[in-house]
Formats: sequence, structure tokens, C-alpha cells
Amino acid sequence: MFLSKLTSLKDAILKLNNYQIIMGSEKINLKDSYMRVLAEDIKSFHNSPPFDKSVMDGYAVIAEDTFGASNNVHKNFKIIDKIGAGDFSDKEIHSGEAILIATGAPIPKGANAVIMAEFTSQEGNVLTIHSQVTPGENISPMAEDIKKGQLVLEKNILIKPQEMGLIASAGFLEIEVYKKPKVKLIVTGSELVEPSSEVDTRSKIINSNQYTIAAMIKSSGADVDVIHLSDDYNTVKDHINQASKDYDLVITTGGTAISKGDVVVDAVDEIGELLFHGVAMRPGKPVGVGIVNNTVVFTLSGQPVAAMAQFDIFARIYLFRMQGLDYNYNIVKRKSMLKIPSTLGRVDFIRTYSDNTNARHILNRGSGIIRSMVEANSYIIIDENNEGINKGDMVDVVLFDSINWNG
Amino acid sequence: MFLSKLTSLKDAILKLNNYQIIMGSEKINLKDSYMRVLAEDIKSFHNSPPFDKSVMDGYAVIAEDTFGASNNVHKNFKIIDKIGAGDFSDKEIHSGEAILIATGAPIPKGANAVIMAEFTSQEGNVLTIHSQVTPGENISPMAEDIKKGQLVLEKNILIKPQEMGLIASAGFLEIEVYKKPKVKLIVTGSELVEPSSEVDTRSKIINSNQYTIAAMIKSSGADVDVIHLSDDYNTVKDHINQASKDYDLVITTGGTAISKGDVVVDAVDEIGELLFHGVAMRPGKPVGVGIVNNTVVFTLSGQPVAAMAQFDIFARIYLFRMQGLDYNYNIVKRKSMLKIPSTLGRVDFIRTYSDNTNARHILNRGSGIIRSMVEANSYIIIDENNEGINKGDMVDVVLFDSINWNG
Repeated sequence: MFLSKLTSLKDAILKLNNYQIIMGSEKINLKDSYMRVLAEDIKSFHNSPPFDKSVMDGYAVIAEDTFGASNNVHKNFKIIDKIGAGDFSDKEIHSGEAILIATGAPIPKGANAVIMAEFTSQEGNVLTIHSQVTPGENISPMAEDIKKGQLVLEKNILIKPQEMGLIASAGFLEIEVYKKPKVKLIVTGSELVEPSSEVDTRSKIINSNQYTIAAMIKSSGADVDVIHLSDDYNTVKDHINQASKDYDLVITTGGTAISKGDVVVDAVDEIGELLFHGVAMRPGKPVGVGIVNNTVVFTLSGQPVAAMAQFDIFARIYLFRMQGLDYNYNIVKRKSMLKIPSTLGRVDFIRTYSDNTNARHILNRGSGIIRSMVEANSYIIIDENNEGINKGDMVDVVLFDSINWNG
Repeated sequence: MFLSKLTSLKDAILKLNNYQIIMGSEKINLKDSYMRVLAEDIKSFHNSPPFDKSVMDGYAVIAEDTFGASNNVHKNFKIIDKIGAGDFSDKEIHSGEAILIATGAPIPKGANAVIMAEFTSQEGNVLTIHSQVTPGENISPMAEDIKKGQLVLEKNILIKPQEMGLIASAGFLEIEVYKKPKVKLIVTGSELVEPSSEVDTRSKIINSNQYTIAAMIKSSGADVDVIHLSDDYNTVKDHINQASKDYDLVITTGGTAISKGDVVVDAVDEIGELLFHGVAMRPGKPVGVGIVNNTVVFTLSGQPVAAMAQFDIFARIYLFRMQGLDYNYNIVKRKSMLKIPSTLGRVDFIRTYSDNTNARHILNRGSGIIRSMVEANSYIIIDENNEGINKGDMVDVVLFDSINWNG
């Protein structure tokens, strides 16, 4: 009976950390890189902008030539060229001259400002202005955003839209990213059947873990294949063994069978090494982690809510780190609206609905109550040295949204 | 010149709201529903659990028979049957009898508790217990999570892992979800070229918007096709016209050309109706929205940072609502670490790095500075009636992570 000695949550995490695997990298097209993790430092090939750039449609001029112009005092210039977006001009501007210029086009030699088209009128090659501009006005200077050779992004960051823009501007069409982990999810339980409006309600239970845990794996940046097995020891053992060779990570749920203890845990213990089984936490106490063929196997509960909490506490962080993200939960402070008893020596993860100020925990939260996870948006964490929370106490909260694959 | 009269941000949003389109729905397999929006109310076909369920491996007994049992006082029972997961027993328990039972199996008639296997020993059909249990112990009562016929989820919610578990338990293998919007992104600009280590730095600029805005569209739950066009009026017009027929939404960036104003805005004005062009906000003033063939067209700036802010403020919310989510930004309060000047009559979206307490805005934030979006994780919003922020003032902040497609 492995469960008779519980491991502290802290020790369990330390043991798991010793077996943290990090994925290799692969080169992909930048346009496919959204929500992947960068596996190389990005040094810019270019200045950005690559030249002094007009940020308005208008006329490149010498700013000093415009001084004094107003609605009442107009000034005239000779237009000597035009520069469309994507073009450039070899001409140099001298006092009294102007060049028609488009947004995004390079400022011609001699000019130091752009006067917006709406403050001008043009007839033939004569420009009349009725406003003044200051030196540098409407110009984005060369290298204002990025300098050539500059380290613009360090590896191990999650690539969001803005990072993609920066990488593009640095000149990269392809980049190295960490490979996505391939995860095998093995849902065990002879009592489990597919969702249907007609289920044998004398003995069968709908298999919800195949949906929740598979989606949680996706929400951690990984790919997943799912299989459902009945509680047959050899079948379970063979599947775990094969999956540990074919996948980067194996996650199981359930696996209880009469007089045999937990078939999954026994199987992992036979074909590999069990790091721990049974952790001083609630919900989720029966969680285990083993190593089979150098692959980590998380053995989660069959109880849906326990399995979700175990996933959040162990598997999610492990998956993030496999992809090069050194992830830790963002703990925020909220005021507890209710009293919450707890037990010394055990870490509690209390399903809770939190707004920007308060946290009210869900009252009906047996480890099978999926509704409690839908009604909650956060966990209150009560650590092992704490006997409970009084109404009005400030508590540690982790918001579910903050543990998604987006930060 | 459309820009000469700016629309207030509030009026711009009101005008856009009049043209809010909501997608139709489609039936999909539950396992494909992660991060889709539910388009039907879910009423459960079943009780969940469907029967009084054992939550431990052990023995179903009459609790009262165990009273007084302890490590010193053992009690014996006759084992009359066994129930594996997925099975059931027709036998009824009477005083002094027990049935071996697996986690997930239905409690047999007559029993009202389960004693865990670890507090028992078995020899032949004789069970010896050395602990007592209370009525209901280790039993999850029928319908504890969900009652048959109960409305468990209302439509228009984003489907996350826990919702998938609840829908499965309610008996649904397939569900109605809102269709994903198909968006055409038209990036205009003759100066734009693909990312490369070798770019003609006299006149060409790397096209970063095709990456950032495309990824932002994906981050809003939609699918996107991208095309890059040069600043040719007829080409731009024809593509917008065709895209407005083939897609659910059209988004453009850039489109400046000498002496023609904005080719994109002019094109939208010719083939459709321009709702507004030019909004009293910074960055992002030149944003426009038009209707072409009953399809909304967002005309965003070519400047990368302006385009990102315009997307966040207009297109993101529009896309969320297209998919049935009545989305509004979650505004949190932070203390500004710096003074920020502003201008009456204009709403500012100041790129900022915020932690759980403070907000420090990014100082170099010209509308071309993509780095400023990478360094920031939030906007400080300064409304139009505010002349600026003093150091230490509490300010309104929207965290970028809170505007992703996750809740």
C-alpha cells in the first residue's frame, strides 16, 4: 500500500524536478510560431526602421524654411521630386525645395521634417504651406526601434503577436522553437463509457477525463493522443510501457481494481521506478509520479476534480518547463469571504470564485463535483502550516486564466 | 480628407456596435470543442453520478455494524459478493455482511458506507475490520454533481477543459458551437518586403503586420488568410470587394499613397459605407471602419504599434462578440510609477509593464516601436476627461493576458 506514507507537496515537487526533461528544438516558419517557445536568441540583421522614415503623407522639407508659416502667412516651395512607399530619391533638398513623400518612404537628403499634406496645397510644382513644422517632425529616425546586431529577444520566451512582429523586423523568416511535447493520455476504468443520452445507469459512468485532461494538455502547449482502457493489469502495463517509448510524457487517470491496489501504480512500479505515490494535499492525494524507460508517467486520480487539480499542480508546470518556459504560478492576494477550515501538514487547493478584490470559495466541492470547477475561476492555496482561514483574511489565490498557455 | 473631424472613441464604438454580426452555429464533436463558444443550452440527460458510487476501494457495509471497531477491537463480516468497476450486484446487504467494492462501482442495496481496504484484512470470505465508518462515508451520492434535466451550462460561454467534462457528464457527444469567423487580412504597402537577412535598406521595410495582426486574429478565436498588396488603388479596391463577399470580416493595414489620401479608406468609401475614419485616441488615431457588401471592414494603420492598439480596441471585441461572447475588458487598478501627461478629448492607451501592485509605462513608445509592445504587458487607459496622471496615482489598467481568448 503505497499511500500509507504521504509525501509532502514540497518534497514531491523536488523529486519531480530531478527528472525534468527539456524538448529539443526545430526550425519553423515564423508565421507558424504563435504560442511556441523561442529556442534561440534573436539578434537583428537590420536597423528598424532601416532609414529615417516618413510617418505621414506630405512633403519633406527643411523645417527652418517653414518657420513663421500659418493660416495667415503662407509660404511657397518648389517641388523637385516625389517618393512613393517602397521608392527612394537620389535628389537632395535645398532651402525652398520640397519633395512629395508617402508614409513609410525614406526622407531625402537635406530634409529634416515632413509637413502633413492636409496643411498644404499644391499647384503644378508649387507647394504652398500654411503651418510650420519642427525639426524631426513626422520622421521615425533610423534604428529607432531596433539597432542592427542588437539582441532583441532572448530564448525561452513564449511567442505572442508582438514578439512575432519584432522577430520579423529583425529579419527572420524561420526560427528555432522548442518541439511540442507529444503526450499519451491513458484513461483507465472499466466503468467508463462514452457520453450518450442512453447510458446503463446501473453501473456505468461517463468518461469525462478523456475530455478535461486532454484539453488541459492542449492548454499547456502540448499535443495529445488519448486511449481508454479497462482495469486489466497486463493491458494497462503494456500500454504504459509502449507509450513511454513512443511519447515524451505519459499521463494516466484512474486505474482502481479490487484487491490489487491501483493497477496503474502497480504497473509503473513493476516496469519502472515510482518516485512517489500519495501527496499531502487536497484534493488529489492519490497522485503518483513514476519513471518508465526514462519517461515521466503522471498517475492521476479517476475522480475528475482531483485529476484536474493534480494536473494543475504537477503536470502543467512540468509541460511548460519541457518547452523551455521557467514557469511559476502568479499568486495574487484576495480577501476571503468565508471561513475555511484546513488541516496542518496538508496543502489545500480550494476551488474559488474570485473578482478583483474578494474570493468566495465554492461550497459543494467533493472531488467528483465537476460543477465546482466550472463555477470556480481560481484556487485559494492554504499551505501546510496553516490550520485554516477566517472570514476577511487575505489569502493566496491563483487565477485559472493565469495558468493557461499565454503568459 | 476624412481625418479632419475626429470621432470620439465612445461614438466610434457605438457606431460599430450597430453592425455587430453574430456567426451561425455548427455541430461538432465534443473533443474538438476546446476554446469554442457554446451555442446551445446544455440540459443533462443523466444524474451524475448515476448511482450512489463508491469513491474508494474497500467493502460496502452497514455503517452501524462497524461502530466500536478499532485497532484493538476487531469485527468480522461475511463477504457475500464483489463489485468491480463497471459492474453491479443484485445482492442486498444485511447486518454482518459486506461486499467487496471498487472505486467507481455502485453501492449495493442495504449498504450505507464503504470501509477502505487498508483498514481491513480478508481471509476466504471473512472480512475483519479494525476501524469504523460513518453513514455515507466514502460514497458519492447519486446526482451529487448533476441532476437529470438540470440546466448545467447556458449558451455563449467559452468552452474550457472543465466545461468539456461537465458537458460529457451531461451525456453529449456532440454540441452546437458558434462557427469560427473567417477573416481576410489585407496588408497594404509598396514598401513592404518579407523578412530576410538581406533587405534593400534604401527604401524597403519588413512586413511585420502580416505576422502580428494575423496572430492577433488567431488569438481572438478566428481563422485568417493573409495577402500583401502594393498601394495600387484598383487592386486594393478589388481585393476588399472580393474579400467582403468571401469572408466574415475584413481587416486591412496601411494603404497610404501620395496625393490620394488613404487608398484603403478611399476604396471602402467608393464600394461601401464608411462609418468613421479618425478617432480621438492615441495611438491609433487614423483607424476607420466601413461596411462593404454587409461585411465590416476594419482599416488599421500601417504603423505596427498603432495597428495593434486599434486591433485590441475595436477588432478584438468585435471578433469575440461575433462568436457569441459578450466580452468587456477587465479593468484592474495599479499605482502609476511615473507621471504621464495626456490631452483632454483624447483617450490614451499607454503601453505599460504592470506587476500585481504597480504600473510603469514604457518610455520609448512611438507608434512604430514594436519593442514597446514586447516590453509592455498591459495598457494604462487615460480617458478623454483626464489631463494626465501624477506619479503615485491609481490608474486603470488592462492586462494583455486578460484580453486573450481564454475567458
